[in-house]
Amino acid sequence: MADYRAPREDMQFVLQDVFQVDQDWARFSRLADLDMDTAAAIIDEGAKLAETLIAPNCRAADEEGVQFSEGRVTTPSGYRENFKQLAAGGWVGVTANPEFGGMGLPKSISAQYEEILCAADISFSLYSGLTAGAIMTLDQHGSDELKDIYLPKMIAGEWTGSMCLTEAHAGTDLGMIRTKAVPADDGSYQISGTKIFITGGEHDLVDNIVHLVLAKLPDAPAGSKGISLFLVPKFLVNEDGSPGERNQVFCGAIEHKMGIHASATCVMNFDGAKGWLIGEPHRGLPAMFTMMNYERLGVGIQGLGAAARSYQTALEYAQDRLQGRGARDTRAADKEADPLIVHGDVRRMLLTMKAFVEGGRAFSTYVGKQLDISKFSDNDAERERAQALVDLLTPVAKAFLTDTGFEATVLGQQILGGHGYVREWGQEQLVRDCRIAQIYEGTNGIQALDLLGRKVGGSRGKLLEPLLEDIAALTAQPAAGFENELARLDEATKLLERVTGMVLRQAAEDENIINSVAVEYLHLVGYVCFAYVWLRMAITAEDKISERPYLASKVKTARFYMARLLPRIQSLAAAIEDGSQSLYQHEPDEF
Amino acid sequence: MADYRAPREDMQFVLQDVFQVDQDWARFSRLADLDMDTAAAIIDEGAKLAETLIAPNCRAADEEGVQFSEGRVTTPSGYRENFKQLAAGGWVGVTANPEFGGMGLPKSISAQYEEILCAADISFSLYSGLTAGAIMTLDQHGSDELKDIYLPKMIAGEWTGSMCLTEAHAGTDLGMIRTKAVPADDGSYQISGTKIFITGGEHDLVDNIVHLVLAKLPDAPAGSKGISLFLVPKFLVNEDGSPGERNQVFCGAIEHKMGIHASATCVMNFDGAKGWLIGEPHRGLPAMFTMMNYERLGVGIQGLGAAARSYQTALEYAQDRLQGRGARDTRAADKEADPLIVHGDVRRMLLTMKAFVEGGRAFSTYVGKQLDISKFSDNDAERERAQALVDLLTPVAKAFLTDTGFEATVLGQQILGGHGYVREWGQEQLVRDCRIAQIYEGTNGIQALDLLGRKVGGSRGKLLEPLLEDIAALTAQPAAGFENELARLDEATKLLERVTGMVLRQAAEDENIINSVAVEYLHLVGYVCFAYVWLRMAITAEDKISERPYLASKVKTARFYMARLLPRIQSLAAAIEDGSQSLYQHEPDEF
Repeated sequence: MADYRAPREDMQFVLQDVFQVDQDWARFSRLADLDMDTAAAIIDEGAKLAETLIAPNCRAADEEGVQFSEGRVTTPSGYRENFKQLAAGGWVGVTANPEFGGMGLPKSISAQYEEILCAADISFSLYSGLTAGAIMTLDQHGSDELKDIYLPKMIAGEWTGSMCLTEAHAGTDLGMIRTKAVPADDGSYQISGTKIFITGGEHDLVDNIVHLVLAKLPDAPAGSKGISLFLVPKFLVNEDGSPGERNQVFCGAIEHKMGIHASATCVMNFDGAKGWLIGEPHRGLPAMFTMMNYERLGVGIQGLGAAARSYQTALEYAQDRLQGRGARDTRAADKEADPLIVHGDVRRMLLTMKAFVEGGRAFSTYVGKQLDISKFSDNDAERERAQALVDLLTPVAKAFLTDTGFEATVLGQQILGGHGYVREWGQEQLVRDCRIAQIYEGTNGIQALDLLGRKVGGSRGKLLEPLLEDIAALTAQPAAGFENELARLDEATKLLERVTGMVLRQAAEDENIINSVAVEYLHLVGYVCFAYVWLRMAITAEDKISERPYLASKVKTARFYMARLLPRIQSLAAAIEDGSQSLYQHEPDEF
Repeated sequence: MADYRAPREDMQFVLQDVFQVDQDWARFSRLADLDMDTAAAIIDEGAKLAETLIAPNCRAADEEGVQFSEGRVTTPSGYRENFKQLAAGGWVGVTANPEFGGMGLPKSISAQYEEILCAADISFSLYSGLTAGAIMTLDQHGSDELKDIYLPKMIAGEWTGSMCLTEAHAGTDLGMIRTKAVPADDGSYQISGTKIFITGGEHDLVDNIVHLVLAKLPDAPAGSKGISLFLVPKFLVNEDGSPGERNQVFCGAIEHKMGIHASATCVMNFDGAKGWLIGEPHRGLPAMFTMMNYERLGVGIQGLGAAARSYQTALEYAQDRLQGRGARDTRAADKEADPLIVHGDVRRMLLTMKAFVEGGRAFSTYVGKQLDISKFSDNDAERERAQALVDLLTPVAKAFLTDTGFEATVLGQQILGGHGYVREWGQEQLVRDCRIAQIYEGTNGIQALDLLGRKVGGSRGKLLEPLLEDIAALTAQPAAGFENELARLDEATKLLERVTGMVLRQAAEDENIINSVAVEYLHLVGYVCFAYVWLRMAITAEDKISERPYLASKVKTARFYMARLLPRIQSLAAAIEDGSQSLYQHEPDEF
């Protein structure tokens, strides 16, 4: 595995030059102290930690994996020490509420840190990632008492969190869960049931684990409207805040998986464990989804991080490895063969990866910027508009960043040929680790259904408007040299509008159409969004090439993206236009 | 992992009803004894072996893997016994020369058996697969003496074969190999050098391993025209044909890989090992490629087999697993939720898999039929035409069957959600095992270069003609109810012709264009070929639905393929039309 180097320059270009997030911060009272120099210094600190400690341990941690014995989970060598460093740097609470010790930083910054951490080691990133999600849920929905007891410890990284949703028979369909919560006399609840696929449900990194658990109260209505959320600590907390008596929640087994071998995926048995209600009875699912929606960008960034790491290794290999001969004018006559990078197909693979990685970084920063506006702005209208963009783009970020991330890691493996298939180089690990991000936190199919059914369909297309406005603002502005590319973006946007209208009209008569075309629709939106951020980057870069010559690459990659990848929307549109028809001919026994 | 059941009915439909291979056999003197009943019985025998012994062991064999210690390789439990059964059934020599004990069966049959074996366990299939390749090379290019000594044992599966090509610095670019062959006084050669990525280079299944090794003679011209082929046995053979003295060839290590854990991928050290020349000096590469070209269809079939297995498990899961609610008229009101198969997106994934699997089966049979005609026909013109189709379609079969196979296994994993990511269900193993087939025996990028550069470009497009004729014969024939689909195929074929003309014209001026668009071009050809075989199947099936009602599914899946998957060619054509331009803007330091 090549050494990992965090893309500090590109991150700063995207944050400052393209999206000018520092101008947002200056306007927001709670971020007024933050400037770009501070942000760059913060990112640099995280980058050093990732480059020197976490990334070098990633390959060995995959081989060692997590071990399970008699209810205990042992993480790979180095994980405990590295987690302490991460916690000491304040990274677990990077976006968390300063009232409880969090850094309170905006998502546009934490998105960069998350990419770096995921590029370094996705498995490792999950222990703090899930904790951050639990912190957020508790902060938004928990009682003051619960927050006072748990938040400072979790934000400091002394305790971690887990999110316990899935049961063996209930994954996507949480309405069917059977875990029970029975009220006790002291205001607490006794939680009983079995949860599966619980990331970080048990491990040896810290002294206590705070489980957020979905369960049903005795009087719960059936289905998803009868689910409540509970806090269940591994160890009950003493008066002085130290971990005390062991609670009746135990890890029964860990899963053996395709990848993220160093992340503990646990079966968790709750056997009358003591828990406390978070928020209102029967309102657990909306509470959990506040967090899920915020975190879904983070899962998308796992795909981005894996792709970014894979690209670095593939590029280094393509520049070093001598194999075959290129065209006459690129030949290294003094060598036995030319480096791989002279070959058209290798360039195609590298540029596809580069377009997805840098496009993904810009897109996740764009979404992060909207999350920040919706959270920090003092202006209602601005907040509302940003929230609409967040609602629309969250499923796109989760699914499109992981689907393109997976494609990129597969290409990064292909460039290394047989060396990409052996474990030593780490490229195949990135494929395996990235793959889960397309599945968990709501499969990418579910994200697509959320986008087209709930968001676009639910708003009768209105939720698309802020995105279309942002794109129109770009295509309306003259930009010499980009006329062709802007025209292509304009055409692509019109295609999206046309297809959206068609689907919404048909949906009135065809109950199956949304779920039949949702995945292609999400990809269509994703390719249009990437075209938008690529052209914003290219137009911004063009003006600055004289000061920063390396930005010439941005313009070239943007042209590659528009010419070579954006045309994928044609096939997507054709598939969408077929509707549900070709999917519903087969009887169940005709498959 | 669901139980595997070989698709006997579909295989017979494709062989007999669609491609009428039995009518070919009747015309060929060397196959005149073969009829469809015999063929069906043969396939059934292979199917039983795969279903009862090999497939049930596949998951455990992946977990156990091959072990290496002090030069010895131990295969997983069950492999020795199962290999003996395979050999006893005559399966190692299924297509081999009857003069030396082979069954001499046509490729159209062995393609079915290979799919079944790969669906059962790709790792296991490789030990006999590589042996079959070595048998073929030796039979075509070896001296009578070498053939007499080695072929009967190899064909009987008493000894296996390996193909030793790659060296650490020379993969795709074999011209750079450094392994040396020095003539000895007795007519043999001393072989010295190190080979890597040698499948089945060492193992414990049989008593002797026959390595076919590429090496350079002292007077060899530089590059790929100076490579000779040698036979190097693990044990020298005694006068009585038994294995004797240990030869100086040893396994130095095995690779730790993403998948095919039960296949030994060896570093082989030749330290003055005794070997014998096969064929002419310096003509080793063409000799090896006779075999490689024949075997590349077999590698394509690995992708097909993995996809077929994945489909069976995904379908079973989608029919059993209750999750969420479908449209009103598909609801199972008596159950807590509906089976996954009611959901449009699940149907999309299943049908995409089904279209690739059954389309792939028909396509590989079509190519197998051409291989048989080119080998067995007594008519020169017919043989020549079939050989042209084989030359054209071999790289397509290798790359397109593995690329679509990989896509299918990834979908088969996605349908199972989190259960697809844990190892227990076997879906993730199929993704890992299938992935190598896109890389080895010439990466899929190299296949694309072979197709567009050597085959289509080298013939100035002439090699496409027999395929276009076959398609035209189909689209010209009236077929009531398929007018739309035939028109789509006709349009797709015209698109292929247009794009081909454009690339060939530009290639005269642009040395980079072939390698810049080759992969998209191969996919374009692949989608057109699948459309052709799907419509042949549909039109054939339509006439027989009254006798065999299950064939209605063929017509429906064909319509799905034409409506939903064939449109992918639009994006491929757009990418091809961009040429090399957008790939050659970046300087090497601008990536």
